[in-house]
Amino acid sequence: MLKGGYMGKILRVNLTTKKITTEELPEKIAKDYIGGAGFGIKYLFDEVPGDVDPLGEENKLIFASGPLSGTSAPCASRIALTTKSPLTGAVGMALSGGYFPVEMKFAGYDILIVEGESEEPVYLWIKDDKVSIRPAKKLWGINTFDTQVLIKDELNEQNARIACIGPAGENLSKMASIINEKRAFGRKGVGAVMGSKNLKAIAIRGTGKVPIANEQAFKEARSFMLSAMKKSAHLYPQFSKLGTPMVVEVTSALGIFPSENYITTGEKNYVGDLGVEASLERAKGSEHCYGCPVGCSQMKLARGSSKYISALSDPEYETYYSFGGETGVRNLDSIIFADQLCDKLGLDTMSVGVTIGFAMELFEKGILTLEDTDGIDLKFGNHEVMVDLITEIAYRREGLGALLCDGSKAASEKIGKGSGKYAMHVKGLEFPAYDPRGAKAHGLNYATSYTGADHNRGYAFQEIFGAPFPKAYDRFAAQGKGWLTKWNQDIRCATTDCPTMCGFLMDMALPDVAQKNTADMVSSVSGLSLTPDDIAKIGERVNNLARTFNIAAGFTRADDTFPERILTEPIKGGPSKGHYISRDELKEMLDEYYNVRNWTMDGIPTREKLTELGLENAITTLEGLGLI
Amino acid sequence: MLKGGYMGKILRVNLTTKKITTEELPEKIAKDYIGGAGFGIKYLFDEVPGDVDPLGEENKLIFASGPLSGTSAPCASRIALTTKSPLTGAVGMALSGGYFPVEMKFAGYDILIVEGESEEPVYLWIKDDKVSIRPAKKLWGINTFDTQVLIKDELNEQNARIACIGPAGENLSKMASIINEKRAFGRKGVGAVMGSKNLKAIAIRGTGKVPIANEQAFKEARSFMLSAMKKSAHLYPQFSKLGTPMVVEVTSALGIFPSENYITTGEKNYVGDLGVEASLERAKGSEHCYGCPVGCSQMKLARGSSKYISALSDPEYETYYSFGGETGVRNLDSIIFADQLCDKLGLDTMSVGVTIGFAMELFEKGILTLEDTDGIDLKFGNHEVMVDLITEIAYRREGLGALLCDGSKAASEKIGKGSGKYAMHVKGLEFPAYDPRGAKAHGLNYATSYTGADHNRGYAFQEIFGAPFPKAYDRFAAQGKGWLTKWNQDIRCATTDCPTMCGFLMDMALPDVAQKNTADMVSSVSGLSLTPDDIAKIGERVNNLARTFNIAAGFTRADDTFPERILTEPIKGGPSKGHYISRDELKEMLDEYYNVRNWTMDGIPTREKLTELGLENAITTLEGLGLI
Repeated sequence: MLKGGYMGKILRVNLTTKKITTEELPEKIAKDYIGGAGFGIKYLFDEVPGDVDPLGEENKLIFASGPLSGTSAPCASRIALTTKSPLTGAVGMALSGGYFPVEMKFAGYDILIVEGESEEPVYLWIKDDKVSIRPAKKLWGINTFDTQVLIKDELNEQNARIACIGPAGENLSKMASIINEKRAFGRKGVGAVMGSKNLKAIAIRGTGKVPIANEQAFKEARSFMLSAMKKSAHLYPQFSKLGTPMVVEVTSALGIFPSENYITTGEKNYVGDLGVEASLERAKGSEHCYGCPVGCSQMKLARGSSKYISALSDPEYETYYSFGGETGVRNLDSIIFADQLCDKLGLDTMSVGVTIGFAMELFEKGILTLEDTDGIDLKFGNHEVMVDLITEIAYRREGLGALLCDGSKAASEKIGKGSGKYAMHVKGLEFPAYDPRGAKAHGLNYATSYTGADHNRGYAFQEIFGAPFPKAYDRFAAQGKGWLTKWNQDIRCATTDCPTMCGFLMDMALPDVAQKNTADMVSSVSGLSLTPDDIAKIGERVNNLARTFNIAAGFTRADDTFPERILTEPIKGGPSKGHYISRDELKEMLDEYYNVRNWTMDGIPTREKLTELGLENAITTLEGLGLI
Repeated sequence: MLKGGYMGKILRVNLTTKKITTEELPEKIAKDYIGGAGFGIKYLFDEVPGDVDPLGEENKLIFASGPLSGTSAPCASRIALTTKSPLTGAVGMALSGGYFPVEMKFAGYDILIVEGESEEPVYLWIKDDKVSIRPAKKLWGINTFDTQVLIKDELNEQNARIACIGPAGENLSKMASIINEKRAFGRKGVGAVMGSKNLKAIAIRGTGKVPIANEQAFKEARSFMLSAMKKSAHLYPQFSKLGTPMVVEVTSALGIFPSENYITTGEKNYVGDLGVEASLERAKGSEHCYGCPVGCSQMKLARGSSKYISALSDPEYETYYSFGGETGVRNLDSIIFADQLCDKLGLDTMSVGVTIGFAMELFEKGILTLEDTDGIDLKFGNHEVMVDLITEIAYRREGLGALLCDGSKAASEKIGKGSGKYAMHVKGLEFPAYDPRGAKAHGLNYATSYTGADHNRGYAFQEIFGAPFPKAYDRFAAQGKGWLTKWNQDIRCATTDCPTMCGFLMDMALPDVAQKNTADMVSSVSGLSLTPDDIAKIGERVNNLARTFNIAAGFTRADDTFPERILTEPIKGGPSKGHYISRDELKEMLDEYYNVRNWTMDGIPTREKLTELGLENAITTLEGLGLI
């Protein structure tokens, strides 16, 4: 019997049958997976076969928060959405923040599972234990910001919190996001899954409270956490004042801020245009997620041309990269505008920017011609074209919109002509903003993360912020990165994605105490007795289960790799000049990684490992595939 | 002692001294002016000299609601803002709807008077009897939609209702509006007054209730009103389903839908592009003001080009005209986009559209050249340019933005070259969407309304919907229009602008019972005993007091006139072909109007009339000017 942290209930909504049911959250699942991504992957694995069509009726949307969400734990208003990704075909797990996560807890649910498919557009309205499926035909076609306003008005519930898709999700763009408030379940095309179910939005209003199992212990754990945060070298005032865009200067100094689809990384410097000073000039204050003392979301007001002026948005570092360096664009105002436009249309800023950068390289190489672009001058740096393409993509418009709207991998397959080697993705998920040629643990994480090239599933802060924990690493070295990547992936998973806490804590504030902190916070709030070692084990469990799902989905060792550029073209200039990841280095890192994971050299988890983790169902799956 | 309807309190905020005070609402003022525009004009007259600089410290913003707002009276969530208009120099009274009006009542106030000027940007936060002036530097530059979201977040009050200015108000555009929710205090540049005071926003949250003096009588009056509304030939389902844009077809059939700055009215038909069918194709449901059973605000979703697609807005008939016919634009999607853009930037759609249409005529006539427009092809029908100019205007940008941002009159004065005769305004306020050459009572109302060319101050529904009340009128005739205009102005003022009820009721549902309805509704809610005759008298009182303010501001009979086109160029085609208002007809109408108003032939209210209306202060003012 769960004593605190958890609401103890799973809400299940079937859009085909319109059946709405609740079930109990088993204590064992809470103890083995904590929450968030752990819950999501557990239920995905148990209920969705690996080989289903991500946009078909059998796929599910599993929203799960953690035991800390909705308590006074700082930075815990997070929620994980797990589904099979239409962009990658692998596990599609995306987290969002803001207020929606705690609202679901307040309404009484740890997990919301949406299954089936509605024939007509609908939205879900959850007011505590009153749950209804409502018509949304009138909302179809409406952007995510307006949708939230209209639903609040319709429900006469200004305090409702709403997650919804925009036109991109409706049009099944495989880069579609889900937006709640101004936050996003950004990547892996999760918005298209919602669109495929004809589910426009989920509105929640909760009036409950999250119980605390052990108030005194929780108070102590919380105060330990807050003081650890205060001691951080990066969190205050730097990160609090600048947000993630401060990283532009960090990675530029390392020579790994990617530019022009990774052709010119390190050679061209973007600090003057996209650095801290340019950001601060446009700063308009910060937005906080529920219960967050940091407030890293820095609102910026675009200026300059009439096209961009007055756009207000909070592009993250990754968006500075995807709509900035990656596309060769130096116009920060256009990036702010593009960020807001993506949020409104419900698109992942990262995948969209990288896909546009990819198209720009093809254009400069003559693989895409003026005829293909309908006369558009698709060269690097053309911010007007970049911005225009966002709408084309969201609406899957004939021409470049339809060509690019499912991401760089799908586009390269349509274009052919050897374009695939310029598509910067792993497993279909576009590259993040750390050129792995100068940060090889980042690289190995991209190659092996269960979601594709996803910096957030095992962020190697050791290579970026120099934190010597668990020990210092040479960012250019391949050796040792197998062990480190496993550690980063497991700890990140268990200390942030599952509990659910903000990832920035781990990267910037608490790396050395993250396991202890998570164990204490989760144990005190829930009454479950978790040790720091349990935490590491939970991370490992989730990563192994996700890996097994992906194997069932058809992925093999061959998919744990990089685009050719990373394997063959050294960085041409700057502090990481000359570095790349050779095929031998990739092999060495993968071998080490599989080895420390106790997986076969084909990347298959062993029976021994899965037994140790209590993943009998994963063994059954691999047995069924003849892989174990 | 006021018994109901009124909260009995005036909130006064001085932005210079930061002093916040409350005072009692005198019963006599309630009885003599009812509320809304009546209160506004009474306090403006008493506290603001006619000759002050509208953008100076001495001008005031007087927000006043009526006794019915916040009760269960239908269609009464309205609020009047009265100030000296920077666009006209006359009384600038503008009404808005939505939820802001009732929130002010719930907070406990009938009137909010903002005076003085803050040195730094601030916003006002009114939570019941807790009132504070808060810093708004961070909000400066931010559009009206984002401002509302940010303030709600900052206050952690999702139920707050906010009226605010956008960049246009900050930049003191004399066409700047004030936006609450998606509603507008639209015309007369009231947003610039707020901008001149460095007041970004007023946020209100109220938890009180509006008392009802006589529940039983109110119930009966309300039920009479609702059944009168139901009997209306126009209100349901037509108006409820189509909103004001249905009028495009009505005025087109009469040949008075204005096109191309009134050059081609009647000749060119816009029904195919802007008519009911085109509207319904884009319809996305309706928004209701508080307590309104009609819901005339029809949300429409733009489609077509990437530039406009996904814009969601509710352009009124007047916006169809100003950004449609007036500019020769037939692209409805661009009109929806322009409407939303104006709301976000805080601009009056009517004045902006008409001013752009004016500039287009000058361009087509060669008075503005390609050199003046910086190469922009400013011809009629160019919707892309029309949309781009909106932002230029809001930011007072060098070139066309700075030239046009204070409206057509100011622009014509800067341009010279005889351009003034093409500027379609009265007293600086741009023309509404009824070509007065085919609707002469509309014309006389434009010429004499205390706010300039304002259809809402004395809407001659007799000429548009054919309602034979108080009797049938020939729309082309000049004779009798003096009497009719006085009646329309007084009754409109007293039955809608003061109580405060929605103007559409009067035009479409209740013209024959408006006086009785207002008397019964206001009397029952407030305990004041008003007869239908009292209602007419109140309208007359308010119009006379406003007229006296305008005389003190320097206006004379010579200002009660039309642009030359109306006086000399007949309508060239369609059902109103050949008609215009000759100078003789204008003289005849004015003479009749002054006569029935018991004003001198110079348009000065007589001592006799003012005494009859109890306006001794107006007599004193006119005595001071040597005019009485």
